[in-house]
Amino acid sequence: MQLTTIEDIDAAAARIGDRVVRTPLLPCLWAAPDRPLWLKPEQLQPIGAFKIRGAANAIGRLPAEVRARGVVAYSSGNHAQAVAYVAKTYGVPATIVVTTNTPRVKVDATRGHGAEVLIVPPADRESAAAEVVAANGGTLIPPFDHPDVIAGQGTIGLEIAADLPDVEVVLVPVSGAGLISGVATAIKAMAPHARVIGVEPELAGDTAEGFRTGLRPDWSTDDRARTIADGLRSTPSELTFAHVRKFVDDMVTVTEDQIKDAIGLLATRSQVVAEPSGAVTTAAYLHANLPKGRTVAVNSGGNIDPALFAEILTTQVWTKPSHSQRSLRGT
Amino acid sequence: MQLTTIEDIDAAAARIGDRVVRTPLLPCLWAAPDRPLWLKPEQLQPIGAFKIRGAANAIGRLPAEVRARGVVAYSSGNHAQAVAYVAKTYGVPATIVVTTNTPRVKVDATRGHGAEVLIVPPADRESAAAEVVAANGGTLIPPFDHPDVIAGQGTIGLEIAADLPDVEVVLVPVSGAGLISGVATAIKAMAPHARVIGVEPELAGDTAEGFRTGLRPDWSTDDRARTIADGLRSTPSELTFAHVRKFVDDMVTVTEDQIKDAIGLLATRSQVVAEPSGAVTTAAYLHANLPKGRTVAVNSGGNIDPALFAEILTTQVWTKPSHSQRSLRGT
Repeated sequence: MQLTTIEDIDAAAARIGDRVVRTPLLPCLWAAPDRPLWLKPEQLQPIGAFKIRGAANAIGRLPAEVRARGVVAYSSGNHAQAVAYVAKTYGVPATIVVTTNTPRVKVDATRGHGAEVLIVPPADRESAAAEVVAANGGTLIPPFDHPDVIAGQGTIGLEIAADLPDVEVVLVPVSGAGLISGVATAIKAMAPHARVIGVEPELAGDTAEGFRTGLRPDWSTDDRARTIADGLRSTPSELTFAHVRKFVDDMVTVTEDQIKDAIGLLATRSQVVAEPSGAVTTAAYLHANLPKGRTVAVNSGGNIDPALFAEILTTQVWTKPSHSQRSLRGT
Repeated sequence: MQLTTIEDIDAAAARIGDRVVRTPLLPCLWAAPDRPLWLKPEQLQPIGAFKIRGAANAIGRLPAEVRARGVVAYSSGNHAQAVAYVAKTYGVPATIVVTTNTPRVKVDATRGHGAEVLIVPPADRESAAAEVVAANGGTLIPPFDHPDVIAGQGTIGLEIAADLPDVEVVLVPVSGAGLISGVATAIKAMAPHARVIGVEPELAGDTAEGFRTGLRPDWSTDDRARTIADGLRSTPSELTFAHVRKFVDDMVTVTEDQIKDAIGLLATRSQVVAEPSGAVTTAAYLHANLPKGRTVAVNSGGNIDPALFAEILTTQVWTKPSHSQRSLRGT
């Protein structure tokens, strides 16, 4: 199988250019001394998540006459908004297929980027997208199972290696594994001494299981849907799982309470809004058994339900010193 | 009176180096088309506020043998943490004088940066600091009334002009006016076509009043303490007011509700945590009568009380479309 290369990622970095924010690494003063921590805050991207990188590379790489016929995506989450936004910056039409159970706020956000939104029953999602492609000649932009998407997400790894060449541990959220596929490819090329560790919710820990067994996991959609980390409910494709097997050093999981704890800490001590899917890496930093050393936690996004966020801020468990001390020992 | 120059600010930029995060400009997709908006997110600095820039320049500029005797500050807010943190990075002692009514959480945070904290009655704050200076030979680092502090804050203006050379409007929070003094000096040198507009809470609108009358304002401490923007309760010094008179184009004020509205919008649409003092510029963007054009809102900090933040997230007024439409017309 043809895997993404560092050359693909270098080309993606040049291609995505100013459509993407060059996020800085944010040092965390609250980190443990033997494990200094930096955040890679991808929630600061225009649509609030890293997905804009893959979308910008995949759409940017289309020949202009193909791109002009428009792009299509089926997703209700950050990928939908990323495709809609990038299409708008290119002045080409975008059609996003969402399901009847998609929250109105996400539909509105996607429409807000100028996309046409098709609302269909869940079972008809893929066929509806295929019909749009067949009818208009548009191009389907998949959320993770595509080399151009993987290369786009990999630009995060390039930036980490450029900003912190002696990084020792890189923590990356894992869902369909497009993000970690790109980041790990870049890190192993540019900072090969660093360990790349994938993080999943325990309740959607299918890739962690597959990493141990060597077999691509096969958890049911219902099982993976149990976590509050709604961006981490996908499962790797053959392409992304091959990247995980080749480039990822370890996989760890975190509990739902640990994810909430990390969201509170990130808001109050690092002044960023993290969605559950984006906070899993900080949760792992606090609670998983990880190697010591200079650590970067990729925060993948910040589109959290305000009510959940308020509830977490109100409970404030993360400010209890005893809790914090235990956490910072990395137990 | 000797005002800060662009040369002072250039020198500060070189001096503060990697103690400070080079914050990116964050484009806001929710902005009005005729007034594109970028945030300058200074809440992403290590202590959660821009104050680290002035402290790093002032402490960095001390001769090494003077700096070794330590630094002193009296403050309970972001400046205290900035001085404590920068002193720690230089390996020199810091003594921070706080008052008996300072919240325990702020005392702990300051101690957490390795500073010695003296707790004294409010009336004894300045004399206690003077005693520390006399006893140990340390150097007092004032929060805004000092050319080196102004030059350090001015590096924000340099970065704005470098990242967005055709910026047309720069919105800056005003309290003691050290921040806007530095930013306006830099903008008028590097992007002189841009208008620099100061923003205050209506309840602490002393500088806005002084800007109209030409006289340095003289509001009581009690009057200025009415706003929830606890970082905007100071009043300009002769030095900073001279900068405001020379370089600032206009001053506007915002209400307490407008500040809360902006905090909610920033959290849910731009994924950053803003304290009331940092959100006033976004509030002005939404609600004040401002010139059209490419606008940058300086977000000065993100150290907000979690309970207040949760309360704002729960009310959600900023998501009502009618409200948002009114807001975005800039009425």
